[in-house]
Amino acid sequence: MTEPALNGLKRYLPILDWGRRYDRQALASDGLAAVIVTMLLIPQSLAYAMLAGLPAEMGLFASMLPLVAYAIFGTSSTLSVGPVAVVSLMTASAVGQIAQPGSSAYIEAAVLLALMSGGMLLLFGLLRMGFLANFLSHPVIAGFITASGVIIAVNQVGHVLGVRAGGDNLLDLLLSLAGQATALHLPTVLLGGATLLFLLWVRSGLKPLLLWLGMPDFGADLLTRTGPVLAVIGTTVIAWWLDLGARGVALVGQVDSGMPEFVVPALLHPAWRELLVSALLISIIGFVESVSVGHTLAARRRQRIVPDQELIGLGASNIAAAFSGGFPVTGGFARSIVNFDAGAATPAAGIIAAAGIALAALFFTPFLAYLPNATLAATIIVAVLSLVDFSILKRTWDYGLSDFIAVAITIGVTLGLGVEIGVACGVLVSLALHLYKTSRPHMAVVGEVPGTEHYRNVERHEVITRSDIMSLRIDESLYFANASFVESRLYALLEERPETRHVILMCTAVNEIDLSALEALESINRQLRERDISLHLSEVKGPVMDVLRHTHFLEDLSGKVFMSQHHAVKHVMTVEDEARGGQPHNWEI
Amino acid sequence: MTEPALNGLKRYLPILDWGRRYDRQALASDGLAAVIVTMLLIPQSLAYAMLAGLPAEMGLFASMLPLVAYAIFGTSSTLSVGPVAVVSLMTASAVGQIAQPGSSAYIEAAVLLALMSGGMLLLFGLLRMGFLANFLSHPVIAGFITASGVIIAVNQVGHVLGVRAGGDNLLDLLLSLAGQATALHLPTVLLGGATLLFLLWVRSGLKPLLLWLGMPDFGADLLTRTGPVLAVIGTTVIAWWLDLGARGVALVGQVDSGMPEFVVPALLHPAWRELLVSALLISIIGFVESVSVGHTLAARRRQRIVPDQELIGLGASNIAAAFSGGFPVTGGFARSIVNFDAGAATPAAGIIAAAGIALAALFFTPFLAYLPNATLAATIIVAVLSLVDFSILKRTWDYGLSDFIAVAITIGVTLGLGVEIGVACGVLVSLALHLYKTSRPHMAVVGEVPGTEHYRNVERHEVITRSDIMSLRIDESLYFANASFVESRLYALLEERPETRHVILMCTAVNEIDLSALEALESINRQLRERDISLHLSEVKGPVMDVLRHTHFLEDLSGKVFMSQHHAVKHVMTVEDEARGGQPHNWEI
Repeated sequence: MTEPALNGLKRYLPILDWGRRYDRQALASDGLAAVIVTMLLIPQSLAYAMLAGLPAEMGLFASMLPLVAYAIFGTSSTLSVGPVAVVSLMTASAVGQIAQPGSSAYIEAAVLLALMSGGMLLLFGLLRMGFLANFLSHPVIAGFITASGVIIAVNQVGHVLGVRAGGDNLLDLLLSLAGQATALHLPTVLLGGATLLFLLWVRSGLKPLLLWLGMPDFGADLLTRTGPVLAVIGTTVIAWWLDLGARGVALVGQVDSGMPEFVVPALLHPAWRELLVSALLISIIGFVESVSVGHTLAARRRQRIVPDQELIGLGASNIAAAFSGGFPVTGGFARSIVNFDAGAATPAAGIIAAAGIALAALFFTPFLAYLPNATLAATIIVAVLSLVDFSILKRTWDYGLSDFIAVAITIGVTLGLGVEIGVACGVLVSLALHLYKTSRPHMAVVGEVPGTEHYRNVERHEVITRSDIMSLRIDESLYFANASFVESRLYALLEERPETRHVILMCTAVNEIDLSALEALESINRQLRERDISLHLSEVKGPVMDVLRHTHFLEDLSGKVFMSQHHAVKHVMTVEDEARGGQPHNWEI
Repeated sequence: MTEPALNGLKRYLPILDWGRRYDRQALASDGLAAVIVTMLLIPQSLAYAMLAGLPAEMGLFASMLPLVAYAIFGTSSTLSVGPVAVVSLMTASAVGQIAQPGSSAYIEAAVLLALMSGGMLLLFGLLRMGFLANFLSHPVIAGFITASGVIIAVNQVGHVLGVRAGGDNLLDLLLSLAGQATALHLPTVLLGGATLLFLLWVRSGLKPLLLWLGMPDFGADLLTRTGPVLAVIGTTVIAWWLDLGARGVALVGQVDSGMPEFVVPALLHPAWRELLVSALLISIIGFVESVSVGHTLAARRRQRIVPDQELIGLGASNIAAAFSGGFPVTGGFARSIVNFDAGAATPAAGIIAAAGIALAALFFTPFLAYLPNATLAATIIVAVLSLVDFSILKRTWDYGLSDFIAVAITIGVTLGLGVEIGVACGVLVSLALHLYKTSRPHMAVVGEVPGTEHYRNVERHEVITRSDIMSLRIDESLYFANASFVESRLYALLEERPETRHVILMCTAVNEIDLSALEALESINRQLRERDISLHLSEVKGPVMDVLRHTHFLEDLSGKVFMSQHHAVKHVMTVEDEARGGQPHNWEI
């Protein structure tokens, strides 16, 4: 194979790169990490399947082949792909709209959703559209994750209380919980409550205790993460011992032991149209979450990830999930940090962990029959509470109004109307606010900073101006959305300065002039000429000048185009003073 | 009444302003204009009612009260409000989706559409949202109008050929026409074809002839516009004389003579939800068309129109149309230019014309029984052909790719899928292209233009640089959509310049830094610090500096913030050279 062809293949198959350098040392690190990860991921996988409204074993299915697919196609050495909280919630919300939870149609739709989302991610990756994720602003993501965390937690409170809470949004969930306040199931509440307290204590109290006992920081961290595993084992034993199932405590129940069957998803399933928007939103959110986790972890080891190839990796993972009977997956923070801390060196750790989960699926599923749902719910609640962080509201409030509005709307709509419409509103509102701002650009009359060639806003600085020259800086690219605003504002400023004979537009911030804006400039030029005022431009950037040179505008311009505002003012001054017969004009400071 | 209260009232009721100054001279001008306009508008009103798929008399109804409402609330002295081509087509397209043409449900829905559109316009006006129209770029409007003109013309060809052409888009229309190629109705074809040729000759041949005969330009213009009136009278007489109705030529038929009845539109009509998007699009297109006509005419008389009050005027007109059994109206170019050329001095001309049309509705409707549909279709075809101008494709192609793409998509989608989706696509595509461009900003490494304090792109100008200082100009506001692009691009540029010890970001074009961008800058600052590179900013604008001062960024910054790029470079040079023990660095030109 030729070198360029091999490099091209390596780009799309990163495993060809790291796989060739794989050695025993890497295998040792990856093997140890995989053992830890396997153990810790099993409760997480079961819990998120429950959150998605799916049978527990689907959580295990979604944690095998997708890891292998990511190991082949992904670019992060430590990212762990599988079911995660927000995507599972979005899956439940999407599929719940078209099928009854628990029905086989519901399961089929979840599998289809993984396939569609995988196909979209793959397509975006091949089209190199990773940049699209940039249109989700950080504050919007933070607000969305926080609001989703609240919804997930409240959603799971029902399982801990032994009642059935339903609803896509906070209000419905709270009303549904309140409506069943009298139906609490005491054994479940006791078991769930105890598990919750235990997990919270593990989070906050165990690590200091272990450190105090002399355990190294690394070990204390890992042991602290075993909380969910201990809770699962402990409550399973209790449920079996006290036969809690017979006392009405909801258990995971009989799970088909064994490996996932190879499933051909119903491609022509009638629901695909209805799932289209959901699949798109899940793809985007999953990608953004995964890439930000990947970036964070890669930066710690001075590695890099390739967003466009990550799309392909996640696409392959979701398609693998679909063909093995799983549901939408992505790279999650909690999963990946475990993998990272356990010392995974390469994506091979994911392959070994997949094998471990397969073993678990083969041999341990009978024990799941006694696992209480309340335990899984408690692990979810404790996990997502770490996502909830309303401080983004305070930070954006302190920083700027438009960031705050975008976050507040994202949180409000997500809580009030549900996750899908919440994230869509967040993106649209932040884009709309940006467009609104650019449609009413800041414009400053500027003057010379004494002793320099520099021009600044007359309202903010002590600068030199002349009443017959208006130097106007436009702080925005000129395009259709602001062309007529700029035109009216310019006339309004001229009305305040009736002595003006020259207008010099300082174009330092004008990165583009589109056809609508050119028409506005032509109209300004004509109108000013009728009033005997010359229009000049200064500091026009290269790319903008290239465009203007193709038009008649520069020929029709009543004034000139200058390299700098300083040159423009000096030139116009000389011309004006000569016209006055050498009488210099009065300066104003 | 106090002065401020009166001024406030005058803002919302411009009639209080011009009405008080109204005199006999204005009345004379307006009266003459109204007589001409009445005569010329009747064929237009009938024709556009037919285009909208509505009974001919509704065109007359839509040309009475709306004119009075606009005269009270509108700010243009010459705009003529009534049925226009594009809005009538959009009405047909919207109402056709929910009711059968000719049914009473169809008529009710058209009236409801006028009411909804009027309500929206009024609301936008009270909220002062006239700026929204700016988001429709000029090229997109031009493309949309051209494509609509083609659809209208092809739509009407059926009437001229005596067959029934149906469809919302060009392909459907052409297929429908082709399918009936053998069903041509010869008498209709002869009559329609002759009318068409006559009207085309009036447009192109009559005016030169009149001028040659010595008629003044003004009179020749007006007489040329009487073409449709002559065609209507002529073909009506012929149809009555030869009893063409009995020979199968479609005639307008019996029209209820008399005034419109006061109609209370069925507010709770079940169709209102389905018409919501259509009403919004009709409002926007109608407003944009009307405002651009208003601007053009006002500029010729050195008058101004007030867009936000125009929204109120058009809203009132549409509500008036709904209550008098009309359909959506707006200020049209053809109507208004007639009014303008006929010498209308004030909106009173509209009120008088409304009275004239009312008289016509009372006394002349019996004659409409013999008016052939083919005549109206021919007047529409000739009228809209003047809207069709594909040269916008050439102009945008020459100017810039994104304007061209927006126009091409608008024309393509309007022709291929219909008017509503066409204009929506046009707006979305032009906004998306703008956002895409700002998400990948131009960034230029700059150097000193010798002998000045001015810095320009190293790739375009002969400038002075130093290998240890990278002066980087970012040609865009920094916001969420481009924050990570800018970050990666900066690192890529640094890799090409390994000797760099100082990065100076020249912020002349940075009009905003949002929270996502601030996080990117913080990350850049951290990463550069680890590589022992200082980060400086220069020429940060006042509003941006205000925001940064509220954060920790300036304290954490490894370098400084300078008034100008020149100051920044000089300062950094001095510091560096001192650190080298006074050894000046080599300069590169």
